[in-house]
Amino acid sequence: MASRAFSQSQQHNFPSKRVQLPMLRPTRMPALSIKSDHEIMKQMVADEDESFAMQGGEGPHSYAKNSIIQKGLIDGSKRLIQEAISKCFDPKEHIHGNDEPSTPICIADLGCSTGPNTFFAMQTITEAIESQFQSHGLASQIPEIQVLFNDQVSNDFNTLIKSLPQERNYYATAVPGSFCGRLFPKQTLHLVHSSAALCWLSKVPNEITDSDSSAHNKGRIHYTDAPKQVADAYATQYRKDMGNFLHARAQEVVENGLMLLQFPVSNVVLDSDVDPAKVFELIGNCLVDMVKVGVVSEEKVDSFNVPLIYPPVKDVKGILEGCDECFSIEGMEILQFKNMVSLPTVQIFVSWFRAALQGMIEKHFGAEIVDELFERFAEKVKEFPDIMDTDKLKLDVLFVLLRRKNKPKAMAMFNVHINGF
Amino acid sequence: MASRAFSQSQQHNFPSKRVQLPMLRPTRMPALSIKSDHEIMKQMVADEDESFAMQGGEGPHSYAKNSIIQKGLIDGSKRLIQEAISKCFDPKEHIHGNDEPSTPICIADLGCSTGPNTFFAMQTITEAIESQFQSHGLASQIPEIQVLFNDQVSNDFNTLIKSLPQERNYYATAVPGSFCGRLFPKQTLHLVHSSAALCWLSKVPNEITDSDSSAHNKGRIHYTDAPKQVADAYATQYRKDMGNFLHARAQEVVENGLMLLQFPVSNVVLDSDVDPAKVFELIGNCLVDMVKVGVVSEEKVDSFNVPLIYPPVKDVKGILEGCDECFSIEGMEILQFKNMVSLPTVQIFVSWFRAALQGMIEKHFGAEIVDELFERFAEKVKEFPDIMDTDKLKLDVLFVLLRRKNKPKAMAMFNVHINGF
Repeated sequence: MASRAFSQSQQHNFPSKRVQLPMLRPTRMPALSIKSDHEIMKQMVADEDESFAMQGGEGPHSYAKNSIIQKGLIDGSKRLIQEAISKCFDPKEHIHGNDEPSTPICIADLGCSTGPNTFFAMQTITEAIESQFQSHGLASQIPEIQVLFNDQVSNDFNTLIKSLPQERNYYATAVPGSFCGRLFPKQTLHLVHSSAALCWLSKVPNEITDSDSSAHNKGRIHYTDAPKQVADAYATQYRKDMGNFLHARAQEVVENGLMLLQFPVSNVVLDSDVDPAKVFELIGNCLVDMVKVGVVSEEKVDSFNVPLIYPPVKDVKGILEGCDECFSIEGMEILQFKNMVSLPTVQIFVSWFRAALQGMIEKHFGAEIVDELFERFAEKVKEFPDIMDTDKLKLDVLFVLLRRKNKPKAMAMFNVHINGF
Repeated sequence: MASRAFSQSQQHNFPSKRVQLPMLRPTRMPALSIKSDHEIMKQMVADEDESFAMQGGEGPHSYAKNSIIQKGLIDGSKRLIQEAISKCFDPKEHIHGNDEPSTPICIADLGCSTGPNTFFAMQTITEAIESQFQSHGLASQIPEIQVLFNDQVSNDFNTLIKSLPQERNYYATAVPGSFCGRLFPKQTLHLVHSSAALCWLSKVPNEITDSDSSAHNKGRIHYTDAPKQVADAYATQYRKDMGNFLHARAQEVVENGLMLLQFPVSNVVLDSDVDPAKVFELIGNCLVDMVKVGVVSEEKVDSFNVPLIYPPVKDVKGILEGCDECFSIEGMEILQFKNMVSLPTVQIFVSWFRAALQGMIEKHFGAEIVDELFERFAEKVKEFPDIMDTDKLKLDVLFVLLRRKNKPKAMAMFNVHINGF
């Protein structure tokens, strides 16, 4: 598995010193307001109403059976996870005196879906932690490990729970709710992992579906090929969600606790590059075609949008740097999608998006349109094969290692800055 | 709601001194062997294969819609929960110095099913804990609360999660697995609650379905009206399960942590008393009738048994006293079923048992027999109305308050003694 360093100044993975990269637009945005616990709890509950999740169960269109592309991502990042834990996880912090039992290590996987990828990631992490104790001569004092599997309330937790590995070396727990709000008590997490989940917005921005708004996204289902106002609305929602995510984690993660986050990002430079978000333009075109033949109403298409974003790396980096009072960036590396995933077949490619989108499409349009939509989508993919060409498709994965700073009593003030899309 | 003190020597609820009651058969059984963590984890996973759970979903036969009798139990025990926390939960143990944040309070509900009763119980407990902080002048230092909802892997956690109260004052977490094994890291629970769950055995005793065994339970589905060997096999399994339960909790509960356990018990004294287990004799008779008309095979009935027990109080007490190295009995009281539940209709009574048994009946006999079986059962109930007569039905609830002793480093050695059934 090859990887590409993020910049010339960062040839090594996980430098102990924070990498300073120039911001294109370093203007600071106003600090996010601090929410009370009660407000956060209310928000957490409210967010559940708009929650969506990967297709549940274990059927042919389920996420569990159609996550091979994400699996490539997990495999691709395995080395980075191992190196992050090797360099930054200090086992001595978890060993007390002889009279005190070791505190259990709590690991959260945020946006875990139904498996099996979350189980692969947790196996990598728990084994890396155990190795760390062994290499420090502390093999006999490895604490018990608790893994907290989180996803939206609408996630199929029954499938997740029934799929738990028989041979796991941790206590498994499921935590429902949006990771944009608080999910865990204060200072209880030692390591947070999230893979291919922070690209999902907590909701479709309100103005996108407001026919009186200049950001009304008529005849499209995404910001791709849309007016600037639409892209700006996505960017604003993303910045808000990421701010809430970091704010919540700043309270939940212990001092020196780690966050291993993986974000799909867009890396379009050349005219011949294909933006990964282009796929939603193709699906949107299929829906417009279905309006033309009377299978779907125009109003339904105008009011449907996919709340997913592939931000440029610089935007993610800007947000993370804006929370430097709480988290230090210990490492950052880009994994190129093309080095992790071999060229899929049309069927695998279509099934991947079907597993991700079927739930929200059924909810909005009804289950009866799903088969036809994805048959049309398969035809569109054949007409535009560049969408599957891993050389042209500029979908990379940004791997970030954050460490919670030792300021537990400081209020978490985030100055979030981000560039428009 | 009236209650009856357990004995003359225990007129007050939750005496601070442990109540000593005479054991009818005080012979100590051999100590349970100590399991390694690996063995416990293996056992925990193995147990999942035989797990069963209440009927999921929210349909007309679901547990969620048919738990009104258990709700009477929750209401009946509300005062006891409040008194237990008022007398034994010390908020000062959860307050650190000014510089340290309060440790979150972790509460586990074991055998929670799909709700809503678990939510009522957790509301009672969390409000009682908050009142305790307020009455000690510590209202501003109430720690965050995490509730861990546990049930078998086969439980419908999706329904549980979607039913979580909007206005909850705790972080909610679902923990799958048998409570006869380890479920949580060591010393992480501050309060354990379990209501109407410890009556379920982890499995049907092997010899009951072995046609070569003298305990083979041919033509019946329970120990009621069965040979002594059958009742002994149930008693042995119950003792083993309770020993495993207490062993696991002894490791998971912090020093001075509390366990509020409620057991349905049988209190048959007079000839005219109806043993609560009699209900399974009636259901068994319905199945035998269905064999006679060729709807169900004889072999299927012979191999089916309900893994539920209503032990006499003295047996439960004997088991709890056998683990006095780890837990002290801080209170014990019997709630009379007749004082908690008004006479149900035949339909409610039948629906109650249908919600509890439908899953295992479908798994064993197939879904097609369920409607006919419970129609026949309703007729049997009408023929034997004493089974619903809360004066004659000797089903009581034993409420027990245990406290984890301050011996965290002592190995938990249980000398379990129990009388036969």
